[in-house]
Amino acid sequence: MRDNPRLQPPGGEGWLAWLRHYRLDWLSGDLVAGLVTAIMIIPQSMAYAMLAGLPVQIGLYASLLPLLGYALFGSSMSMSVGPVAVTALMTAALLGPMAALGSAEYLQLAIWLALLSGVLLFVLGLLRMGFLANFLSHPVISGFISGASLLILFSQLPHLLGLSSFPATPGQLLADWTLGNSLALAIGLPGLAWLIYARIRLSSHLQQLGLAPALATLLARLAPILVVVLGLVLTLLGNLDQRGLPVVGSLPAGLPSLVWSTPGLGTIGMLLLPAALISLVSFVESVSIAQSLARRKRQSIDPDQELLALGAANVGSALTGGFAVCGGFSRSGVNIEAGANTPLAGVISAAVIALILLSIAPLFAALPLVVLAVVILVAVAPLIDIAGLRRTWRYDRREGVTLLATAVGVIVLGIEGGIVLGVGLSIVTQLWRGSRPHVAVVGRVPGTHYFRNTQRHLVEIEPHLLALRIDENIFFANTRAIERTILQALRDYPDTRDLLLILSAVNHIDSTGLDMLSELSEGLQEKTIGVHLAEVKGPVMDQLSDTDWLTGQVDGVFPSTHIAFNTLSGARSAAPEQKQ
Amino acid sequence: MRDNPRLQPPGGEGWLAWLRHYRLDWLSGDLVAGLVTAIMIIPQSMAYAMLAGLPVQIGLYASLLPLLGYALFGSSMSMSVGPVAVTALMTAALLGPMAALGSAEYLQLAIWLALLSGVLLFVLGLLRMGFLANFLSHPVISGFISGASLLILFSQLPHLLGLSSFPATPGQLLADWTLGNSLALAIGLPGLAWLIYARIRLSSHLQQLGLAPALATLLARLAPILVVVLGLVLTLLGNLDQRGLPVVGSLPAGLPSLVWSTPGLGTIGMLLLPAALISLVSFVESVSIAQSLARRKRQSIDPDQELLALGAANVGSALTGGFAVCGGFSRSGVNIEAGANTPLAGVISAAVIALILLSIAPLFAALPLVVLAVVILVAVAPLIDIAGLRRTWRYDRREGVTLLATAVGVIVLGIEGGIVLGVGLSIVTQLWRGSRPHVAVVGRVPGTHYFRNTQRHLVEIEPHLLALRIDENIFFANTRAIERTILQALRDYPDTRDLLLILSAVNHIDSTGLDMLSELSEGLQEKTIGVHLAEVKGPVMDQLSDTDWLTGQVDGVFPSTHIAFNTLSGARSAAPEQKQ
Repeated sequence: MRDNPRLQPPGGEGWLAWLRHYRLDWLSGDLVAGLVTAIMIIPQSMAYAMLAGLPVQIGLYASLLPLLGYALFGSSMSMSVGPVAVTALMTAALLGPMAALGSAEYLQLAIWLALLSGVLLFVLGLLRMGFLANFLSHPVISGFISGASLLILFSQLPHLLGLSSFPATPGQLLADWTLGNSLALAIGLPGLAWLIYARIRLSSHLQQLGLAPALATLLARLAPILVVVLGLVLTLLGNLDQRGLPVVGSLPAGLPSLVWSTPGLGTIGMLLLPAALISLVSFVESVSIAQSLARRKRQSIDPDQELLALGAANVGSALTGGFAVCGGFSRSGVNIEAGANTPLAGVISAAVIALILLSIAPLFAALPLVVLAVVILVAVAPLIDIAGLRRTWRYDRREGVTLLATAVGVIVLGIEGGIVLGVGLSIVTQLWRGSRPHVAVVGRVPGTHYFRNTQRHLVEIEPHLLALRIDENIFFANTRAIERTILQALRDYPDTRDLLLILSAVNHIDSTGLDMLSELSEGLQEKTIGVHLAEVKGPVMDQLSDTDWLTGQVDGVFPSTHIAFNTLSGARSAAPEQKQ
Repeated sequence: MRDNPRLQPPGGEGWLAWLRHYRLDWLSGDLVAGLVTAIMIIPQSMAYAMLAGLPVQIGLYASLLPLLGYALFGSSMSMSVGPVAVTALMTAALLGPMAALGSAEYLQLAIWLALLSGVLLFVLGLLRMGFLANFLSHPVISGFISGASLLILFSQLPHLLGLSSFPATPGQLLADWTLGNSLALAIGLPGLAWLIYARIRLSSHLQQLGLAPALATLLARLAPILVVVLGLVLTLLGNLDQRGLPVVGSLPAGLPSLVWSTPGLGTIGMLLLPAALISLVSFVESVSIAQSLARRKRQSIDPDQELLALGAANVGSALTGGFAVCGGFSRSGVNIEAGANTPLAGVISAAVIALILLSIAPLFAALPLVVLAVVILVAVAPLIDIAGLRRTWRYDRREGVTLLATAVGVIVLGIEGGIVLGVGLSIVTQLWRGSRPHVAVVGRVPGTHYFRNTQRHLVEIEPHLLALRIDENIFFANTRAIERTILQALRDYPDTRDLLLILSAVNHIDSTGLDMLSELSEGLQEKTIGVHLAEVKGPVMDQLSDTDWLTGQVDGVFPSTHIAFNTLSGARSAAPEQKQ
């Protein structure tokens, strides 16, 4: 941040600012939003715990302290944090090779993973390292989410049939078919149909019935509750769990106890890369959600503050035996639509979930797993970003390839492989682009002070003066290309006695570029061709000022192309050379 | 190369062009150079074979066909290819873990390594992939060569004491001391002193004695011959090898037989990465040597042609049981100074070496190993590029760190680790630089058409018009920083009604950047601030022209900042907005 004082982040409002300025007329909005969001996130949290390979109550435990932690530090007024699909999948995928899914050891690792990424995020926040997220380009993020969502969809298909994993062959599926499979399908398919209908049409149908648009949207978002309640009621009335329908099983009543356990150094080493990956994805996801929410209310957020808040939320989750949490898109959507004004809404959600845990939670033991699966399916399917792929592909084929490769990479190579591939590709694309610089021979637009590309505009050139505008930073990946282009241009204009390099679009010259310019100038000196510069930017000039190239080999530096043309055209030896 | 027809390489002269245009008055130069270079490379080739952990005759075998192969395809008129120090070290370092140094299996792997990198280089040449070398920046190359040279120096120290490897402790060295150790030291130290003197002073002393400078330099370069001859004579006269002085041992007479053997798929897989690394380093080294030679004679070289030539040279080396070859700096220096006009000089060198192999080669069996070690020491020490480190460090601290880290990486992590670390660092440095863009608030230089940074110049600004010049491509690594800077500038100039983004230094906007600009413009539209662009480059405009951002959210595009200022200043609603 030293070079440019403007790059300081706008002063964040600091922690609990919302509480210090709390106004009483915000309270009703926060109360309603807290309650509504809680109702929505109860089935979602349990479903994502199942996705992560954990007991469903862990999802509820991870919905208590994280909301308080976020309220302490967060800069978004409407975000709701908790278990989300992508981090749940990452937990399962990253810890799967380390311990058996569902074992006590696995649960402990999941808790430590949340703890470790919480600490990591918090420390990054203290160090103000929010800029790290910049290295994930939009195509990489979009490809990653799409690939992960496809993996999640795929993982939930067996639950639709009442299975916990794919059958070895379709034949075996039929041979082993039981009443439980039929029951799961009989609950799952109508549930799925209802949820798809709710997402696509319910809101507009409710509006046609006379409901206000905001209320209609909100009710449509709460559609999963109906599936949960119906699923519960049917199972309890029909004793369906006795007949083979897979259900949640047991769910202890009461709040989780606060536990602190420190992983050993070996475990920390093993969990560090997974924690770093989860932290990165959580942060990028949360910040982009927080930013889109803030834009809706014309507020702003502070990425470094968000790092602290996410860190506190994850540490909070670990303290009550929960797993990794993150800002959620749909839960935050419900929160803002239900009228949340401040993070108090989240605190109220946490209180509601605590009450549920203390009272009716054991009822959920009879919840069919297929209900949770359809909740996941419908929540995750829209994350597959086909529109984004199409838009990116149209704008830049190469970035489209990066997006697709990241998605396929996540599916084929796994979470880490996909991210590494995507980041690698976006960096290589960027370098490759820089390695093919646009260099234009420019001339004067007749009668003006403007100079434009001779190939795009009708311009005047001077016979002995070759003016080249280099449209790229000069750095290792493109020095050879720039050198060859200049030499080719000199061959195309054999009468050249003065070469003018216009550096208006050159923001940096690295040492490889400087070496090339110096060798090139040496060759031109032997051919008695003068080398001149125009429109050198301040920071570039600062760095060049001490070099042997500028002091020994460059014949003149001009503030503008116009002055350079006037000085160099025709009267080369007449006009004194100008240095500044 | 599609975007810019200028980036085509200047038409290479194709293969054997030098022979088709051969002029008889070039012959004497080529004859003398061929002979002199052969005399110089005989001890060097044997020394580098020893460095590679191979029998010394392999060095001579690798000096026959490679010179013919290069003559067939090469575009440099004075380069001499053969065994060089860095690729010899790489052979030893990369194959060491695969087979015992000096075993028959090791020799076979070294031959296959040359074959594989020859094929790789040739194929890359056919695909015209010479640009791949651009991804090695000068600091990485310099750091790599320096680190490798330090490793080489270190590896030769035991030979000075007549040992083949370092003693476990200094105490053990003394306990095991033999007459052989003393003899090695007695030959090595004076030899070293003579070679150092020859490199530093001999040429100027010879010139003081009246020799022509060119001849004096050439004679000084041949100083190692004296050490070789004296070492041989002393050993033979004193029967020193019988008294424990380590010597070459046996050296078969005659030419190598042509052998073709194809490695299995498993071996190819194992050797692919080593071959790729050796190819990369050989190519970068050879091209930079060829370019500096070409510059001395005002010739030009064609990198893709060089790939073919190096490929043929390495395949040629493998055919006669030789190891990896590359253009050599000192051997090419002798070649050009002795008057080489065409690659015929190399062909003559090869013939001379063939004659030596057919006649006196068995004599070299009595050559003390310490003589080869001092030849290596003095050839390699100047490759440690302290001046380059100092110059790079002064120009850019971060590139200096990359250079040092590459050198240390080669020593600590090994050849591959060092290269990967260096390339990684130079890419990250480049991205990091792009992630901290310079953004300037600009105003008009009074009474002119020029616009400059308000912080560096005394300029006039318009109260309702905020003009920002973005001095960097807008891409994923800097979109957040640019967004924050623009928002901060809007806070600093709260009266802004029109934002003018001057894109004269923006050569590319990626999809992440486009998303940011689009979201930013959406926010500004709500605040009724107009968004305008000026000086958009042709290629950028081409890519943006179809986007929703340009068509829906940008209020005006101006060809110059001057026109934008005139149109937007004060009379915002009066002047019609200009789009083009």
